[in-house]
Amino acid sequence: MPAAINRQVVLKTRPNGIPQAEHFALTETPVPTIGERQILIHNDYLSVEPAMRGWVSAVANYSTPVGIGEVMRSFAAGTVIASRHPGFAEGDKVMGMFGWQDYAVSDGSNVTRKVIEADLPLSLSLGILGLNGVTAYFGLLDLGQPRPGDTVVVSTAAGAVGSAVGQIARLMGCRTVGITGGEVKTRLCRDEFGYDAAIDYKADDVDAALADACPRGVDVYFDNTAGTISDAVLRQLAVGARIVICGTASVASWDPPPMGPRVERHILVKRARMMGLLVFDYAHRYEEAVARLAVWVREGRLRYREEIVEGIEYAPGAIAELYRGENLGKRLIHLASR
Amino acid sequence: MPAAINRQVVLKTRPNGIPQAEHFALTETPVPTIGERQILIHNDYLSVEPAMRGWVSAVANYSTPVGIGEVMRSFAAGTVIASRHPGFAEGDKVMGMFGWQDYAVSDGSNVTRKVIEADLPLSLSLGILGLNGVTAYFGLLDLGQPRPGDTVVVSTAAGAVGSAVGQIARLMGCRTVGITGGEVKTRLCRDEFGYDAAIDYKADDVDAALADACPRGVDVYFDNTAGTISDAVLRQLAVGARIVICGTASVASWDPPPMGPRVERHILVKRARMMGLLVFDYAHRYEEAVARLAVWVREGRLRYREEIVEGIEYAPGAIAELYRGENLGKRLIHLASR
Repeated sequence: MPAAINRQVVLKTRPNGIPQAEHFALTETPVPTIGERQILIHNDYLSVEPAMRGWVSAVANYSTPVGIGEVMRSFAAGTVIASRHPGFAEGDKVMGMFGWQDYAVSDGSNVTRKVIEADLPLSLSLGILGLNGVTAYFGLLDLGQPRPGDTVVVSTAAGAVGSAVGQIARLMGCRTVGITGGEVKTRLCRDEFGYDAAIDYKADDVDAALADACPRGVDVYFDNTAGTISDAVLRQLAVGARIVICGTASVASWDPPPMGPRVERHILVKRARMMGLLVFDYAHRYEEAVARLAVWVREGRLRYREEIVEGIEYAPGAIAELYRGENLGKRLIHLASR
Repeated sequence: MPAAINRQVVLKTRPNGIPQAEHFALTETPVPTIGERQILIHNDYLSVEPAMRGWVSAVANYSTPVGIGEVMRSFAAGTVIASRHPGFAEGDKVMGMFGWQDYAVSDGSNVTRKVIEADLPLSLSLGILGLNGVTAYFGLLDLGQPRPGDTVVVSTAAGAVGSAVGQIARLMGCRTVGITGGEVKTRLCRDEFGYDAAIDYKADDVDAALADACPRGVDVYFDNTAGTISDAVLRQLAVGARIVICGTASVASWDPPPMGPRVERHILVKRARMMGLLVFDYAHRYEEAVARLAVWVREGRLRYREEIVEGIEYAPGAIAELYRGENLGKRLIHLASR
């Protein structure tokens, strides 16, 4: 039998910009009992994503914002501990939108997938074999359309998505250039993720470093930051460049949108394509990406880093920490079975 | 025999921004004699294009800027009046990059095409059956990918390119919304070019008018202006919107680039695609577009307006006039045979 208490992190007030610990509250409710065609999941790992900033924002977005008093929306990976659903058995490992809480009841509709890679850690289903890996895979291959020999530039290059983009681009025969902040992360880019060049936007002259690293211009720019980093990359596009907009980590608030140099002339003169990426649009092809990524992981050709902390108490401040750029790998919160 | 004098408009000084009359000089040289494999063309019509601003700009562009003292680069339509080239006969009508001058010598390499639509005015080869029509055709159909029922918004909607875009979109079964300046042009959009709605950016509240005209959002935005008009359209994109960047008429100078609200969030949230269009990339498919456009013109389903003025003296001030938005049709300069 599950413990009687379900700890939940709920949205207390709506932030303008990056959510801080004070915007959340930790509450306790009884663990629910399940009905016909339902399962009870114990969340072994909770995910922390940059996208969560958007999920709690009142500004127009791709999904309804989390309501005040509701459990924080989140991907989680867990174990089915009770099932009255014909599609799930006790012991099944599942990944889905189970929220920042110990236990989730599901009718299956919020289960993204059963985790079938039993030889690999369950936590990977929230990172390199989860949204991060799948985002990198389709964003780079489907939208970025890299060709062997192309120069691919990645911002937040050492991050959970960025590091996968850089490595997949390299597997495709591209020259890869990572932009990241600080010496530790630039070293990580070069030594661990195999970038041909790594630029420290905090220390380097980004324009000069880009010109040096991309002598024939930038063919693909996988953008996780927006802001002045993107401004610098756009000045060095090659003809026919593809710009994949995956995130806007450098922009603290979009209400109102910040000002920057207009992009139209770059797009026009270079006949470039700037495209928005939302991984949920690839839900129907999710397994295709995970299968390919898992092969690369098993072969040791696709590396990943995780930073796993213990306890749901960590969750409220986790998004703000992510935006401070302090983590060196996919941030996950482990919840012990009780 | 041609007259002994070839009048030419040459670039005198390099403008920063929109070229004015004072940046050009009108000079006279003898009409050249032709050599083996050359033709002599009398230019019957000279074209005036918004793109000419870029052709004389020192700022990075898609072509080498016109040199100081060189004849102004321009499309022209004319008649072969002497030929020592096996591919051309006296009397052939040709369109190509012949420059702002009475006569041009060519080895054929700067001939865009022979004008084979003998039943239609030669001037059309510089407008609706020329770069303007071909730009509208490929920009809308190949990049914009309109589907029946889509809402297509066009800026400089009454212009030579814009009016063609609006009409082709309508022929494709789209709802068309034109943005233009002044009452005369909005009326032209509605009555002559068949737009379902026309917005006067000088008089209307553009945000409100767009919301009213595009209740399900904007599926395709064919952008000839950039600037605040584009900012308004980007706020009302539909999911999956396509933005075709064809021109930046509202921006006086790109050196340095002007500031505007950053676009990344719109592109990301709406999974939009912003694409630069350069018609020269479609050179290999030029005849495909002209053939289709000519059918529509003959059937009376594709309307056009021309404003033809007389005499090369008109040329130096013509680009600035275009940017003042005073013309109500494709601006051409007719040169009489002498």
